[in-house]
Order: sequence, then structure tokens, then C-alpha cells
Amino acid sequence: MAEAAETLDGWYCLHDFRSINWSKWKALSGTEQQAAMQEFTEFVDQLNQNEEKKEGSYAFYSIVGQKADFALMWLRPTMDELNELKTRFNKTKFAEVTKPAYSYVSVIELSNYLGKDAGDPYANPRFRARLYPTLPKTDYFCFYPMNKKRDQQDNWYMLSMDERREMMKSHGRIGRSYAGKIKQVITGSVGLDDWEWGVTLFSDDALQFKKLVYEMRFDEVSARFGEFGSFYVGTRLDEDRFAKLLE
Amino acid sequence: MAEAAETLDGWYCLHDFRSINWSKWKALSGTEQQAAMQEFTEFVDQLNQNEEKKEGSYAFYSIVGQKADFALMWLRPTMDELNELKTRFNKTKFAEVTKPAYSYVSVIELSNYLGKDAGDPYANPRFRARLYPTLPKTDYFCFYPMNKKRDQQDNWYMLSMDERREMMKSHGRIGRSYAGKIKQVITGSVGLDDWEWGVTLFSDDALQFKKLVYEMRFDEVSARFGEFGSFYVGTRLDEDRFAKLLE
Amino acid sequence: MAEAAETLDGWYCLHDFRSINWSKWKALSGTEQQAAMQEFTEFVDQLNQNEEKKEGSYAFYSIVGQKADFALMWLRPTMDELNELKTRFNKTKFAEVTKPAYSYVSVIELSNYLGKDAGDPYANPRFRARLYPTLPKTDYFCFYPMNKKRDQQDNWYMLSMDERREMMKSHGRIGRSYAGKIKQVITGSVGLDDWEWGVTLFSDDALQFKKLVYEMRFDEVSARFGEFGSFYVGTRLDEDRFAKLLE
Amino acid sequence: MAEAAETLDGWYCLHDFRSINWSKWKALSGTEQQAAMQEFTEFVDQLNQNEEKKEGSYAFYSIVGQKADFALMWLRPTMDELNELKTRFNKTKFAEVTKPAYSYVSVIELSNYLGKDAGDPYANPRFRARLYPTLPKTDYFCFYPMNKKRDQQDNWYMLSMDERREMMKSHGRIGRSYAGKIKQVITGSVGLDDWEWGVTLFSDDALQFKKLVYEMRFDEVSARFGEFGSFYVGTRLDEDRFAKLLE
Amino acid sequence: MAEAAETLDGWYCLHDFRSINWSKWKALSGTEQQAAMQEFTEFVDQLNQNEEKKEGSYAFYSIVGQKADFALMWLRPTMDELNELKTRFNKTKFAEVTKPAYSYVSVIELSNYLGKDAGDPYANPRFRARLYPTLPKTDYFCFYPMNKKRDQQDNWYMLSMDERREMMKSHGRIGRSYAGKIKQVITGSVGLDDWEWGVTLFSDDALQFKKLVYEMRFDEVSARFGEFGSFYVGTRLDEDRFAKLLE
Repeated sequence: MAEAAETLDGWYCLHDFRSINWSKWKALSGTEQQAAMQEFTEFVDQLNQNEEKKEGSYAFYSIVGQKADFALMWLRPTMDELNELKTRFNKTKFAEVTKPAYSYVSVIELSNYLGKDAGDPYANPRFRARLYPTLPKTDYFCFYPMNKKRDQQDNWYMLSMDERREMMKSHGRIGRSYAGKIKQVITGSVGLDDWEWGVTLFSDDALQFKKLVYEMRFDEVSARFGEFGSFYVGTRLDEDRFAKLLE
Repeated sequence: MAEAAETLDGWYCLHDFRSINWSKWKALSGTEQQAAMQEFTEFVDQLNQNEEKKEGSYAFYSIVGQKADFALMWLRPTMDELNELKTRFNKTKFAEVTKPAYSYVSVIELSNYLGKDAGDPYANPRFRARLYPTLPKTDYFCFYPMNKKRDQQDNWYMLSMDERREMMKSHGRIGRSYAGKIKQVITGSVGLDDWEWGVTLFSDDALQFKKLVYEMRFDEVSARFGEFGSFYVGTRLDEDRFAKLLE
Repeated sequence: MAEAAETLDGWYCLHDFRSINWSKWKALSGTEQQAAMQEFTEFVDQLNQNEEKKEGSYAFYSIVGQKADFALMWLRPTMDELNELKTRFNKTKFAEVTKPAYSYVSVIELSNYLGKDAGDPYANPRFRARLYPTLPKTDYFCFYPMNKKRDQQDNWYMLSMDERREMMKSHGRIGRSYAGKIKQVITGSVGLDDWEWGVTLFSDDALQFKKLVYEMRFDEVSARFGEFGSFYVGTRLDEDRFAKLLE
Repeated sequence: MAEAAETLDGWYCLHDFRSINWSKWKALSGTEQQAAMQEFTEFVDQLNQNEEKKEGSYAFYSIVGQKADFALMWLRPTMDELNELKTRFNKTKFAEVTKPAYSYVSVIELSNYLGKDAGDPYANPRFRARLYPTLPKTDYFCFYPMNKKRDQQDNWYMLSMDERREMMKSHGRIGRSYAGKIKQVITGSVGLDDWEWGVTLFSDDALQFKKLVYEMRFDEVSARFGEFGSFYVGTRLDEDRFAKLLE
Repeated sequence: MAEAAETLDGWYCLHDFRSINWSKWKALSGTEQQAAMQEFTEFVDQLNQNEEKKEGSYAFYSIVGQKADFALMWLRPTMDELNELKTRFNKTKFAEVTKPAYSYVSVIELSNYLGKDAGDPYANPRFRARLYPTLPKTDYFCFYPMNKKRDQQDNWYMLSMDERREMMKSHGRIGRSYAGKIKQVITGSVGLDDWEWGVTLFSDDALQFKKLVYEMRFDEVSARFGEFGSFYVGTRLDEDRFAKLLE
């Protein structure tokens, strides 16, 4: 039996992708639209307040293409709070003119292929900043879920810890070479959702998503062992841009 | 021809995942909503009475993410009773504001890779408690269906009984190391539904689902032979929480 | 080129799985419901008359879980008659409150891996009873479609006739050991529907479906060469039970 | 690089499978139904006229099972004309009570593994009859799309021309042994639709579809290299039968 | 770790496939239809103006078969502008009678397996014309997404740069032999959408799509390493033809 790498686990995470039913939205009266916008604005205000109090964080992006119209990504200390956010959103007037497009349940995860650190990692400020982060407000966002393959001789989970650690090092080097261009948030979802990890990338240059993922694909970890789900890219929304989207 | 392991089979099991149509729910008048809640409360009361009389058991959870809004898991001595529960639920007023999201038909199963016990296992109280269980009311719930792979040299069903027994022992050791943290209910569905087994996990700490499934994935039984369907996680509902969800 | 086994082909077969739209059903007035039930009862009466005259046969089951609410399985001498049954059903009032869930088109088939019998098998009463059967009215029903795999070295269609015959013998032995517990109807659908065969099992004990399919899965024919579609299980309906289902 | 076999290409082809919304159809008044039937009759008359003038051809079948209710298969000299047919049909009143079920875009194709013929094949009457055919009006119809596999050592496109030619010869022999029982129309769709070829079979005995496809499956071309999509079978419609279907 | 080939990246690209709901369209009054057409005409005028100013480009085609009714392909300097186009279209009256069928997000890409050119390629007029193109207005259009396979020994991303460069040369030769018949636009979508590349072909002879893709399939790059998504083919639309389509 191969040894599992240790993971550090932070906030729970829900990615929620939604499509807007434009006919329904346009069928609302001006007053109804305003009330819906106002209620939704209060919902987002709440998210901002939670973020300021370090009780969680969120990201809000408009999605390109037909897969969805917008995405809300929520971080919270408990799964109960994520569920409450989902329900609170579902009860808003605005939610009635949207329909679910895709969602993803996971937990912020730091993989530890580097061996045991001295001391309690959860007390380490550097780790804490990554486990309980304030999500960046970059211009662009990219999300995709992924697995490590288990196919005949290309079976990640049958490799020794040393083999995996060696490959992850090379993988990490590519990631670090994009420091300053891309901020990457890895969430683990084994046992929680249909893929093993979710990757969320933040950048002010959408082309960097393509460059990073393409370069990594030639790395053995991805080339032999990476399995990828759907990719979602988007441009940042805030209250003003959201109002403009709907006006 | 490889020898099949013996199985002990207990109560029949139906997992029923549903989404709420919030627009429809909100379109009901206050009186209609109350009547629907009242009727549903009586439905759940009935489930509680069945459980008390040891005529079956149930679990009731709110599902995180868009896959579903809630899950009902029912155990009953016969498939006819499961079908009646399904139909009774479908006829409720509340069911009209929901839509089916996923379901799973199976039977509580104890795999017996340890050889024949002395005596009738169905008379053994330790086995009976697992074959006809009262489902725990933990804070969190996780369900996923799975297969044993039959792919070229990774073909579980072409292994000898000894090879399978050896691997299952190691697998069981991991499971037992989570005793006290996770309660696991295995249901068999070969010949009854699209996957071979359903795994239902109960815990008061949702993170334990991730830890257990991740650790097991490095075990040869899962690494080489495990195929997994969708994962559903949820937080516990009771009548009060359900009323709060809908208020 | 490998030699194909001879098959004997009997009645054409249509499995028709449907879901009930309960909101629509409940929205009908009492008079409309009665008229719909009456019309459907006449439809079933007709099926019974056909069966008595040995002009075909049918099975009628309530399906467990969300995949469907009920299944009608029809046997008829021609594909035209199956199509007429489908259309006649579609035009009923009751059909308006249902929606299609799944269907399967096939032909009763007897595989002949045992070599040529003396004489015309279609004149043999033992074969005729199996080619033009009256379907049993057991308490439970199970349907699943399947293929023989064609994947690299696990390619059923590249085996010699002798290899296939040998494996099918062992397979048949398992099937025969369930005689008295399960009645099995094999229908062939190569060239007619998306899988190569449909398997319909009838039993008064639903657990036998699981036992048979599980035991067979360790048999080389299934272990190396079986590919399986969705499994549907159900409990028997007749006019009274159907009226009760809808009341 | 392997050499591609030459193909001769004839008329463009659109298979259009549709389901009837019976509730909507029945909700039309008698006058509306008659008008819809009349308009559709004129549409089919036009198809007949095109066929008589050798400007194209068509087939019209009722589909067995739930995959679709009927299929129209159109042949035309240009893709523009196919698109016009599709649009003309979509604008009919009758189209409003149907919904799309499946479609397939292709071109009549003759594969030429036999080497170059003397002269221009497009001037050869034998070839012309097959490239610009009048589709037979048999009692039964079967359609399925297919690929040649490219999977590890079972990669059709990595074989030499000689290997492919040898296998196709054996394949052709089986096809020819069904002459008089089945008429086969092969259409190529590489670069046009999701599979590489569409196979349309016509016969007055539906069982022949099963016999032909089953026998071919043991042929190495199919056994090792065939990948198959959905199979659709149907019974012939003409204006009278279509009127009867809807009455 | 294998070295990634350099890519040059031009305009962002959105392919947007839509189906028309003919019942909804016909239910609009003449005045509403005219207003919807007028608004849509202004939308297309804007696209033409952008194209004239070299601020982007677009293609507009009617799709054959049921997959969609029309496609708009947009090129723009930023992802934000693509998103604005999508939203602007979604808000039109005409959009209300359509529904999303498929979309694809990518970036015009030139693969550089030929080594580093002297000088800045983005300053090179030959490259600029391909990175920021005016899309041709040919009679026919073909789109399909594709991956390079990563399956056991057929793993493109584990090949050396030299092996890949050699195979791409042969691939390019086939492409160039269709010069004058087909214009090909390659867009990269690694990290942006579900496949790695989108291929858009333009031709005045739809049969050339089939010939090119078929010939390439025997080339090792496609035969061993190509994985293909859905193929969409269409005939050109302009304002007049679009008006005719809807009249």
C-alpha cells in the first residue's frame, strides 16, 4: 500500500455557476428589477463584510461562453455555512431568473510532499494565509476540476511517495515561475465532489491561464497522470459591473 | 472461474436525491406552504415511527452544491415498501415543488471475505445490528456509488479469492482506523442499480470523509480497482431545520 | 474471421419505461382521472387478450427509484405491431401525464453454441415455448442491456467458436443453478438498439437478481467480456395495483 | 504516413429524427390538425417530385421505441438544399408539435479499396446509380453511425493500405451475401458530423438487420476496429400511414 | 519534462452556436418580428464596422442538422469584449427566441515548431495577418474541437520536441496541399475551454472539409494522437439570407 501525502485543510469552498434566463429578467417590471438588484446587493455586501472580518472570502466573475453567465466562489469555515449561503441565494428574487449551471464542493488544501515541518503547521502564519485566504480581485478567473489518473501503468496512486514527490517538485517549479502573474488556489474534493481537486486561477492577464496550463501539460505529472474536467473562464464582476450586466 | 465471496444481505435501501424548485415554492400561498409542510411533517413522523419499531430506518440531509437540495435514504425489509415510500412521497404537495436529482437502489450488504462463521450469521446479533441498522443522526453525510474495475490486467473479478481477501484486509484496516469518526454503511447493488456498491458515510466532521477516501485511494483495492461515481455531501436535516430551510 | 454462433429468433420485444408527472396527474379532475384509468384499463385488457390468444405477451412493473415509474414490456410477432402498441399507448389520455424514461428494442433470442440440432428448431416445442413465451407474472422484475467487450486482448469477437462455447457452458451452469428462483429472458438487439443484448429477469425474490448477477460477474464471460448498461428493478403491477398507485 | 483510400462522393445526406409531442398535437383543433396535415402532405409531395426528377431522394420511417417517433432522410446535390429542407420543415405547423431527437449530416460515399478504375468513375453509370440513388421504399429501415477505432494496437488508421484492403474484402463478402435481402447505403461524415460514417440499411425483413450486423461483428474489421453509435430501426411511412399515425 | 512548443497568441475567439425556437418566433406579431430583425441587423452592422476598423472579425453561418440553427464566431482583442458581445446579443429581442446549443472559448494561435524566428514575431506582418485576421466569407464553414491524446504509449505530451516537430511537419504538408481550397483558423483553448484546440475551416466547397479531415486522419499526428469533439458544418448567412431564413 502506497503512503498518502499529508494534506493541510483550510476553509470549505463552494463554486456556484449560474445562467441567467434573460427572458424572465426582462419580463420583470422596473420596480421588480430594482428590488431584485437591491436584495442581491445586500447579499454581496454581506459577503464583503464576512471577508473584512476574515470569516470567509468570495470571488464573483462573469463567465465567457454559454456554460454559465456568472460564478460565485465562496469560502467558509464550515460546510453548514456554505449550505446556508446557497440557500440564502436560492431564496432571493434574483435567483428566480437564474438556473444552476455547475457547482463544486471542496476544501482549501495544501499538499505536503516536502515532509513534516517542525511545529504545528496550522499555527504557522505562512500556511494560515494560504489555508484561510482572502481571494484576489483580479480581472480574470479560471476554474477546472482534475483527477490523478489510475489507468494501467499510468496509475498515480500506485507510485511510491518518492516518485510522486519528485514529480510534484518539477510541477511546483512551473507554478512558481508564474508567481506575480497568476495566483493559484488548490482545493481538495476527494470524498466531497466528483473530481479529486479543483484548481482556481486568478490573473490580470487571461492569456497567462493558457500559458501556464499548456506548459504544465508537458510535465510528467500532467502528461501521464492529469485528467481534466470542464474549464470555466471569466471576467471580474463587482456591484457596478453586475448592475451594468443587467441594465 | 473465480469464486464469489459470500455476502450477507439485510434491508433494502433507496437513496432519493431531490432539488427544490424555489420559484414554485415561493409561488404557493402561505396556507398552501403550511399545508405542504404539515403533510411532509407527517410523512417524516411516519419514518420516525418505523424506525422506533425497528421496521426500517432513514436519513435526511440537505445536500451542498447544485447536484440536489436534499436526500432521503430509506431502509425497509422489502422492495415493495421502498416503492410505496417513493410513491407516497411523490403524491405529497411538497413533492410538486421538487424534481428528481438522483436515486440509488441497493441492499445492505456485509461482504464475507473471512470465511464461513460458525452458525447462522443472520442469527448473530452483531451481524443483525449491521444488516438491519438504525442509521446514525450525524451532522454530515456522504454518498457515492462504486465499481470494482474490470480493465485488462486490472480486473478484480479475475483475481483469486486469496488475492481479493488479502487486499480487502488492508482496506478494512484503514476503515477501522476511522472508527469513532466515521460510520460506514455499505449497500450492494449488483443487479439492482448502475454501480456495484453504494457507500454511505456518516460523521460529525465533514473533513473525515475527505481524509478517509483520500487515504483509501492509495490502497491497492481502490488505486487499481476502484471506479467511483458522483459524490454527494450534506448537512443533517430534521423537521425544524427543514422548516427553517423553507421559511 | 471468427464464426458467428447461430441464433434462433422469436418474437420482437419492446421495453418501455415511463415516468409519471404527478403534478399533471393530480391536476386532472376526478372525471378525467377516471376516464384516463378506464381507457388505460382497456389498453391492458387488450394486452391480456393478446396473451391469451398467444399473439404476444407483456409484463407490467412499477420501477423502484427515480429512473422510471413503470415499465411495459411487449412481445409481438412483428415490429409493426410493437410500433402500433407504442403509438396506441402514446395517444391515450394517461400517456399525457407520463414522459419517456428509456426504451429498448430487441428480439427474443436463443444462442446456439451447442451445434446444430437435428430437425427444424422452430418446429421443436421446447424451443417454441422459449421463442414465443408467455412472460411470467412474478413479484419482481429486473432489466439490463449488455455488450460483449471488444477491448484489446479482451475481445469476445476475436475468440474462436470453441473458446466462446467453453465459456458459455460455464456461464449457463450458473444460470441453471438458479432454475426455480429466476426465469431469464434473453433478447438480442445487435442492429436494433444500442447494446447487443437485453436481459430480463423474473423472480418472486428480488434478492435473487443480486445473487445471480454477482455470481456471474466472477465468471470469465462476464468478468473479462461483460459490459453492462443501466439496471432497472421493479415490483409487479396489475390493474388493481396500478389503480392503487394512482389513487 | 498511411495512404488514405480514395472515396467517391455523391449527394449530401441529412438524417432527421423527431419526436411527436402528443399532448400538443391533441390540443390542436380538428381544423388546425387538418391544416397541419395538409401542409405536411405538400411538403412530402415536394419530396416525391424532387425524387421523380432525380434531384434528390428521401426516406420516411416511423421509429420504434422512445428514441424518436419518425425519421426523414434527405439526399440533395448541395448542403444548401439540405439546409433549406430543414428550415422549410421547421417552419411548418406540424413541426411545432415535434421536437428534435437526433440528426446526422453526411455524403453518399463509395470507398475505393480496389484501386483506380479506368476512366472517370463519376461518368460510370454503375457508380452514378449508387452515388445519386433513389432510396428504396422497403418496409423497414435501420440507421447507425460508426467509427474505425484508433486505440493502441487496434488503430485502423495506422494500418497499411494492403492490410485495410484485405480486411475490407472479407467485410464486403458478408455484405454481398445479404444481396436481395438488404440494401445498404454508406454515407461518409468525417469532417461533417461526430462519427466517421453513417450506415443506412433497407429491408423488407427487420430481422435481417440483426443477422447482418451480428455476422459482421465477428469480422476483424468490426471486431477489432468497429465503434458504433446509437441504432435506430423503423417501419415505413407514407402519407396514408402518417395520417393514420396521427389520427 | 518535455519542452512545450512556443505559441504566438492573437485575438480572443468565441464560437456561439444557437438554436431557434420556431414556435416562439412564429408567435411574435409581425411588428415584433420586424423590431427583432431590426435590432439584430444593427447588432450585425456593428460587427461589420468593427471588422472594417480591424478591431476584430466575425463569421455568421447557418448550421446543418439539429445541433444548432446558426453560429456566430467572434474575434476580439480582449476577453472582456467577447463577454460584452455575448451579453449584448443575449439582451436582444431575437435572443429570446433562441436557445444556447454550444459555445467555445479560445485564442487565435500559431504553433511554432520551427524554432525561433529572428526578430519579434508580433511585429512580423505575415504573422500579424494570421493572429489578427479578417475571417473569410466563404460559402461553407466547419468547426470542431480537438485534443492531443495522452493514453498509455500514445501520449503526445511525453514525446520529445523533435518527434513532435517531425510529425507536425508532415501534418502541415497535408494542410498546405489544400491551400486555395480551405482556409484554416486554429485557436488554442488549453486552460480556457474543454478541449485543447478549436479548428475552424472555411471553404467554398463543403466536400473539401471531408477530404482534408479524412486525409489527415491517416497521418500519425491524427491517427495516433488526435481526439475529436463534435463537428459543426454550416452555410453562410448575411443579413439578407438571415432575413430569408426567418421570413
